[in-house]
This record gives sequence, C-alpha cells and structure tokens, in this order.
Amino acid sequence: MEAPISSPSGTHDIQETRQRLLEAAGEVIAEKGFRAATIREICRRAGANVAAVNYHFGDKERLYIAVLHHTFSVANQNYPLDQGVESGVCPEERLHAFVRAYLLRLLDNGRRVWHGKLIARELFEPTPALSLIVDEMVHPLLGRLIAIVRDFLGESAEPETVKLFARSILGQCLFYFQSRSIIELMNPTLTFDREKIEAIGDHICRFSLAALKQAGNHPAAENSELSEK
Amino acid sequence: MEAPISSPSGTHDIQETRQRLLEAAGEVIAEKGFRAATIREICRRAGANVAAVNYHFGDKERLYIAVLHHTFSVANQNYPLDQGVESGVCPEERLHAFVRAYLLRLLDNGRRVWHGKLIARELFEPTPALSLIVDEMVHPLLGRLIAIVRDFLGESAEPETVKLFARSILGQCLFYFQSRSIIELMNPTLTFDREKIEAIGDHICRFSLAALKQAGNHPAAENSELSEK
Repeated sequence: MEAPISSPSGTHDIQETRQRLLEAAGEVIAEKGFRAATIREICRRAGANVAAVNYHFGDKERLYIAVLHHTFSVANQNYPLDQGVESGVCPEERLHAFVRAYLLRLLDNGRRVWHGKLIARELFEPTPALSLIVDEMVHPLLGRLIAIVRDFLGESAEPETVKLFARSILGQCLFYFQSRSIIELMNPTLTFDREKIEAIGDHICRFSLAALKQAGNHPAAENSELSEK
Repeated sequence: MEAPISSPSGTHDIQETRQRLLEAAGEVIAEKGFRAATIREICRRAGANVAAVNYHFGDKERLYIAVLHHTFSVANQNYPLDQGVESGVCPEERLHAFVRAYLLRLLDNGRRVWHGKLIARELFEPTPALSLIVDEMVHPLLGRLIAIVRDFLGESAEPETVKLFARSILGQCLFYFQSRSIIELMNPTLTFDREKIEAIGDHICRFSLAALKQAGNHPAAENSELSEK
C-alpha cells in the first residue's frame, strides 16, 4: 500500500484517500462478496478511517457503485472496444478489434485482478448492482458486437438470430477468463501473454467469420430454422 | 426435507442418512464455499448428527469429495454425453449429441441447482478439489469433444489447434450457464425450457460446423498461422 502523498493544500491527500478507498473496497468486495465485506476492513486496508467513507461515498452501497464506475472507466480507457479502428472500416476489421480488446480486458496481466473478479462474483452471486453492470458495461459491449454481427447477416436477420451469433462470439472469449483456473491446471506451461492473447483472438475471429459468412450467404435458412422452434 | 424412512434392518435408514448428508453438504458448500461451510450446518440441514459424517465420510474433505463424485455420477446418468448415439456415426451427429447433452447438464431446470453452482464456485474460488473435477469431469468431456473435432480437422491438425476449436465449442455452451443471470435480466421473457435449449444447441452446432468444415478443407493454413504465433 502506498503512503499518502502530502501536499500543502490537503486536496491531493483527499483525492489520494478516495483512490485508496476505491482500490481497497474493490479488493475486499471481490474477495468476500458485497454482503460479507465490511467498511472496517476496507478502511483498514486503505489506511483510512470510517469517516472518510462517509465523507467520500456516504455508505457501503454507494462506495460499491463508485468502485464499479471506476472499473468501467479503467476498462474503457485502457482497452477501448474499437481499438482505434474507425467505425467506417469493414466488419471483419471491426470484429477483430472487438475480440482483441475484449480478450485483453479479460486476460491482460497488467489489469488489476480484482476488476475481473468483481464482475465474475456478480455473475456468480448477483446483487442489485448487477443491473448497473448490465446498463453501463454489458449494453455498450453487446451493442457494438450486435452492430458488427448485423453487418454480416444483413438487415433482414431476426434480432434473436443476431443475439445468438453475438453470444457465440462473447462465449468463446469469456471461456478463457471463466475457465482460466482449469485451463492453467491442464496446461501448466501456458501463460496468457500478449502473443498468446493475439493467437487466441485470431482463432476466435477465424472461427466466427466462417459462421458469419456462411449465415450471411443464406440468411433465410438461419431465420426460418429458428422461427420453427 | 424428507423424513427418514424406517426399515426393519436399519440399513435403509443408514443409506438414507448418507444421501441426505450428500444433498445437504452440496447445498451448503455451493452456497458458502468449502472453507466457510460447517459440518454443524450440514448436519442440521440433513437432520443428522455429527457422528454420522464421521461414520460415512470421515471428515469435511472426504465428504466434499463424495459430494463431487455424486454430482458426476448424476450428470453421467441423466445426461450421457453420447446421448445414445453410436461412436461409429458421422462427426456431425456426434457433435450435435455432445452439444445437446452438455447444454442440458448446464441449463436443464430438472437438475438440482447446487450441482452447477458447486462447479462454478470451484472455477471462481478453486480448492484442492479442482484437480479431481479436472480428472473426473473435464478430462472425459474434453476427450470426447477433441475426438470429434479431430474427425473434422484431420489427423495432421496440431494438438493446439484442436484445443482451440474444442474451447470455442465449450465456451459457446458455457456462456449460457455462466452469464445466465445477465441473459435473464436482459431478456425477461426468456425461459430455458427444452425447446429453447434445443434451439440454442442447433445454433451452436451450425455456427461451429461452418468453422470446422472450413478448417477441415484448409488444415495447413490453420496450423501454419498458429505456429507463427
């Protein structure tokens, strides 16, 4: 834990404390879950007193919401989903940029471990904050992917078909995050460095492009098979 | 909770108690995690005394291992991965049977909720039992899928390529299990009944077959692109 940096005005100290509280709260909630996490332990880890939580956030619920906003903004800043690719480029390039950015969000070792664990815990043991995650993280992510899928399948594709394709792409990426402990146990020499993440991304794109292009050529078959169900 | 069924010999009672302990332990460990789960609470839920755990299992570790074996055997019995399809049939049919059985294991509402939650918890917070899950559940599952993928890609396919394809298929299925809370939040009218599970399975097979067939026609391209990485 870093020592607070002193500044003449004290404003810097206050911002430092806020940041330390966000980091400590993220760690403790990821580890123990929102319900079991205590303000006391968060403050102990942050080297702050309980009054600081009240001052900066109000209560544990609002502290948690601030922690989530913090992780969303770090993800968007460090791993923008367009990877600098213009929206006008071909859907293949946009798909590649999306898969690459999403895998980096999930697997990059430079990322703080608790960011991913916090979201994984919400999936495993949802709290009322899950709807915030859906609105502010999942919706923008899925919206971007659905626009890419639609470019392949054409405007006549059923919304449900487009969703199935988007989930097939997300699921391939998420697998490496959610099954990471098993993958590492079964492949002891494997490390998720940038080169490996790129290779996985290339495979997922190639795999998905085969399906997207085939469906784009026969959209009616895909729709009618689904609507029969 | 069912009342113990009396029998003249008492053997039936003893087996009943063992079953109730397995069910109660599965529920409590899925809910609280192995470390936080207590023998006291498991016995309370099972309507058994602590001596019964010692008698049947020895200690909490061995009780947990028995619980895991119990879930594996229920899964294999209720959702056999070959779905009665002969090993000699074409790989497309075997893929379909595999995806269908795996989705049913993950999503079927007839399945006890704690079975899936126990495995999901091991992925989220691994214990030493994770290696048992890998050996007895993941290895047979992955072995079967890898044999199917190899039938599409041909004997010359690199083992790492085959693994990437298998993970792409597993990831598509697992997505519906691990992101279920978010999918349900975003699609309030969706229910995972048998018909919906079949439709998802059909999509995953179609999506994956496009990729498998394309790679089967150009195996060299797939291998060389990977080995460059």
